[in-house]
Amino acid sequence: MKISIRSVLDYTIDGIADLLVQVEAAEMPHQAVRNARFDPGVTEHFSRISAEDGIGTRVWLRSAERLNCTYTAEVEVSRRREDITTMAQDPVHKLPHEAVRYLMASRYCPSDEFQSFVGAEFGSLSGGACIKAMSDWIEDCLSYVPGSSHAGTTALDTFVQRRGICRDYAHLLISLARASAIPARMVSAYGPEVTPMDFHAVVEVWLDGGWRLVDPSGMSAPDRLAIIGVGRDAADIAFLTSYGFVTLQEQVVDVTETA
Amino acid sequence: MKISIRSVLDYTIDGIADLLVQVEAAEMPHQAVRNARFDPGVTEHFSRISAEDGIGTRVWLRSAERLNCTYTAEVEVSRRREDITTMAQDPVHKLPHEAVRYLMASRYCPSDEFQSFVGAEFGSLSGGACIKAMSDWIEDCLSYVPGSSHAGTTALDTFVQRRGICRDYAHLLISLARASAIPARMVSAYGPEVTPMDFHAVVEVWLDGGWRLVDPSGMSAPDRLAIIGVGRDAADIAFLTSYGFVTLQEQVVDVTETA
Amino acid sequence: MKISIRSVLDYTIDGIADLLVQVEAAEMPHQAVRNARFDPGVTEHFSRISAEDGIGTRVWLRSAERLNCTYTAEVEVSRRREDITTMAQDPVHKLPHEAVRYLMASRYCPSDEFQSFVGAEFGSLSGGACIKAMSDWIEDCLSYVPGSSHAGTTALDTFVQRRGICRDYAHLLISLARASAIPARMVSAYGPEVTPMDFHAVVEVWLDGGWRLVDPSGMSAPDRLAIIGVGRDAADIAFLTSYGFVTLQEQVVDVTETA
Amino acid sequence: MKISIRSVLDYTIDGIADLLVQVEAAEMPHQAVRNARFDPGVTEHFSRISAEDGIGTRVWLRSAERLNCTYTAEVEVSRRREDITTMAQDPVHKLPHEAVRYLMASRYCPSDEFQSFVGAEFGSLSGGACIKAMSDWIEDCLSYVPGSSHAGTTALDTFVQRRGICRDYAHLLISLARASAIPARMVSAYGPEVTPMDFHAVVEVWLDGGWRLVDPSGMSAPDRLAIIGVGRDAADIAFLTSYGFVTLQEQVVDVTETA
Repeated sequence: MKISIRSVLDYTIDGIADLLVQVEAAEMPHQAVRNARFDPGVTEHFSRISAEDGIGTRVWLRSAERLNCTYTAEVEVSRRREDITTMAQDPVHKLPHEAVRYLMASRYCPSDEFQSFVGAEFGSLSGGACIKAMSDWIEDCLSYVPGSSHAGTTALDTFVQRRGICRDYAHLLISLARASAIPARMVSAYGPEVTPMDFHAVVEVWLDGGWRLVDPSGMSAPDRLAIIGVGRDAADIAFLTSYGFVTLQEQVVDVTETA
Repeated sequence: MKISIRSVLDYTIDGIADLLVQVEAAEMPHQAVRNARFDPGVTEHFSRISAEDGIGTRVWLRSAERLNCTYTAEVEVSRRREDITTMAQDPVHKLPHEAVRYLMASRYCPSDEFQSFVGAEFGSLSGGACIKAMSDWIEDCLSYVPGSSHAGTTALDTFVQRRGICRDYAHLLISLARASAIPARMVSAYGPEVTPMDFHAVVEVWLDGGWRLVDPSGMSAPDRLAIIGVGRDAADIAFLTSYGFVTLQEQVVDVTETA
Repeated sequence: MKISIRSVLDYTIDGIADLLVQVEAAEMPHQAVRNARFDPGVTEHFSRISAEDGIGTRVWLRSAERLNCTYTAEVEVSRRREDITTMAQDPVHKLPHEAVRYLMASRYCPSDEFQSFVGAEFGSLSGGACIKAMSDWIEDCLSYVPGSSHAGTTALDTFVQRRGICRDYAHLLISLARASAIPARMVSAYGPEVTPMDFHAVVEVWLDGGWRLVDPSGMSAPDRLAIIGVGRDAADIAFLTSYGFVTLQEQVVDVTETA
Repeated sequence: MKISIRSVLDYTIDGIADLLVQVEAAEMPHQAVRNARFDPGVTEHFSRISAEDGIGTRVWLRSAERLNCTYTAEVEVSRRREDITTMAQDPVHKLPHEAVRYLMASRYCPSDEFQSFVGAEFGSLSGGACIKAMSDWIEDCLSYVPGSSHAGTTALDTFVQRRGICRDYAHLLISLARASAIPARMVSAYGPEVTPMDFHAVVEVWLDGGWRLVDPSGMSAPDRLAIIGVGRDAADIAFLTSYGFVTLQEQVVDVTETA
């Protein structure tokens, strides 16, 4: 799959703010980025650093009054779909230490709270079959309703309210997976099928010795996504983290398949 | 300072559980560990992995019915006190990427919520002077009351309730620091002055190019602590994380200065 | 059923505190109270007021250093069990205004959050059949685990964690009922079958023109309970509400069937 | 003050829903309502009931697909400003039982959590002087920022975030007052000075034997408000409570001084 990406963040700023922007598609196996251009707009500083787990990049900007940055790129995705349902769960004592981090509860994924539920609902399953059942359960039980959640919504809220958007679906799957001792991390991505078109959030779970991408919203698939970055949850992969108060003016995400 | 450490975790287990234990003093600069012995009790598996940021170790155990493990060691601490009040705050765009992670909100430290407060209360300060003022504010405003908080208490709860124990003090300082764009992580440690004697939790903030240890509870100091491990908050450095339900029978922490 | 009740609250107080105690069995239809005695211990003030909805009484005490009060009484309960499963749900527009209050979300019962879940899980049912299904669902899905919850635990927490004690069971049933437009209130009571013996919390739902008592924990039944008081949730019916900090020394609840 | 009021609620409904609407100015001492008209739009049922504490009315509607109701009235307000700063705090044991209810924690006002803070910050004050100091503290420390809070925001969130709108200001003052053993309830109202124009939320505290109106946002005053209803917090006085899912299309509030 080849896609063409354009994203714009346009915010007003109360005075001066330090801004951490994470919108660039990652250079990584199974996706090649071409003609990438990040235009930070008017800014005092600009520095690019490696993002979580060495996947993708974050950009620090220091801007006054207004952030108006544009990212454009073409990405060729050669990742393939895998059937995770038969994949084995690695025993926790054989996990690499960098995966163990993704067993821990995080800001939006208080996974420790879900142990009884996953034991009762998915306790007879393990590995890929368990993740598949959890993902199906989420797709069955939740309604995709833009506007039904907000920046503070946790997996606990979503589990009760039974509605949300991609980030809420992802937070819930991550929480259920971790509660079953399966490492899970959140992935931000661009995909041409995302509706309504926006930054997308999906999940990677650690199965059979590696990270496997799952989209609990059912909107996309591993071969249809260009990954931006990974982290514990939305707190780590936000397209914009600001030190200072900002107000959204306009946000554009445009992803088109080009071949 | 030379200290002798003994800690015991004694829990009953509902059936079989995977347990992640983090109680060993770290081999690291400024502390030398001698005669360390970790006795896991009766267990099916035992594996030791590197902990967060390569500091210290975690042990996976798989046990049935009962966890009863004992750790003993002698540690010589040669860390020195530093005056942080004059230390400069590194601009965010000059932070190493592994410190940027510690700017993000985490399970118990929803730092994004504190931006207005830190702006109003500490906005005229920066760097070490700011951390000192925050730590003093916490010591002034909070009461140290064992039993006043629980495993789910967040920095937000503590900020309202104005009471807690070392982990709550640490979570609050971490949240305030991150809200001011100063990276902060949580540190578990043993210290002979901790009262009542228990595992202790303190904070490291990134100032002037390195991590600086601060104890907002005022109980200990960098030269009086043997570090176990570091992480984003209590979720990362718990002495016991269990996959399966466990019930506390007895927990012993005994730390004595030996020379 | 005739029961003999003895309850003791023994707390130390930081200085002086105003205390609202609600431990007396209510004088009300279907239960006759005899030989009641409330000994407030040493106190500056003592005043008794009517409690919520005119059911039972609350006592204000003003005490220094220590609260040590004892209540003893004999209660004859003539309430009868009813089969609620066939009872009709009153349309909301025919509810008396004093029942409408019990449709609203409260401190521990954020019932508004449960509308999607109850629609999906119980949407085909109404009235008593719906309440019966909810109560059965709670008994099936939750484990009764003393110590698994705390004073701040809400129905949202309990719904996720799937464990709790009588107050948590009651908060969850109340939340589900209100989300289905069935008024529900919390009831504190004494019952000889409560295990471990303690103050008990159950639920009243408004069905077919009146309040109907349900115990989602399955421990007791309408004919086996002496009601103390009613309210929106635990915030309204606490046996002790204090203005000032108190620390539990001992609490005794002793309920025996006498005939 | 004479004002002319017009308010419109326009929502789409997923199927059929029961809706509780509370938008009518109350007939009560110090305000006379004239030429009131409530047009419920197309509806299956319509019934009006008395609201909390007998102040004002609530209307039940049962509507399909769309709620579009309009309220118009003219209100003459003869309430007077009072200087509350010298008013005495009634000892709790002398409060009427219907005021005691307003000491309890509620959905958005977890007042029990604020006892340490109010003790430290306002402990030397009582009665009206205490309420005045709390209200001033709120006006000083909070920023009025439309869009900074949401339907689930509690006083605990607001206390940390230091921003909100009228309902958040009211929830925080109510929480602080109750934590100081002063009964406090929430009041919905229309006022010509409210900016941006909307339903307004203020507070009544029980001082010197009666309810006293306070606006912690500083936007209005007792003589400049037409009261709609009262309750424990926003859960009790919402202009729209729905059993079924609704989506806002348009909401109009128009209040003009007419003489």
